[in-house]
Amino acid sequence: MEFDVLVDVRLRGGISDPAGATIERALPALGYDGVSGVSVGKTVRFTMEAADEAEAAARAGDLCASFLTNPVIEDAEVTVRPADG
Amino acid sequence: MEFDVLVDVRLRGGISDPAGATIERALPALGYDGVSGVSVGKTVRFTMEAADEAEAAARAGDLCASFLTNPVIEDAEVTVRPADG
Repeated sequence: MEFDVLVDVRLRGGISDPAGATIERALPALGYDGVSGVSVGKTVRFTMEAADEAEAAARAGDLCASFLTNPVIEDAEVTVRPADG
Repeated sequence: MEFDVLVDVRLRGGISDPAGATIERALPALGYDGVSGVSVGKTVRFTMEAADEAEAAARAGDLCASFLTNPVIEDAEVTVRPADG
């Protein structure tokens, strides 16, 4: 069975986010006031073969902790759902 | 009023995704078979001051199209919800 996996990766609280800080600093000059707390993250989407949803979630979590994120500075949220069709 | 905004940016279909392709090529050698269709995107989260949710959504959409994404190669999905508290 195929599952669609979404891995949403964010920097942990307290880890400096230079991309977010740069956006936040630039916005007032570009005409966007009232924007704060900008943070930039990444997403990885893929399709995974697995026997059932639990196996897909376990393998995706593993994969994510081993290769897709740096657990020292990043938090990841893994969402698994059966692929359409 | 404050609103939490999440901008989820993905490459448009047909645009080459070298980061995703590299991950996909590497995974079998790392012990993860059955993974396909890997794509890498980015997220921008921020807090925005606005009178109501419609204004927040309009300004966030504008901001997103003008500065946070490249509409030629990227699609963005903007989610706005009232900030907690």
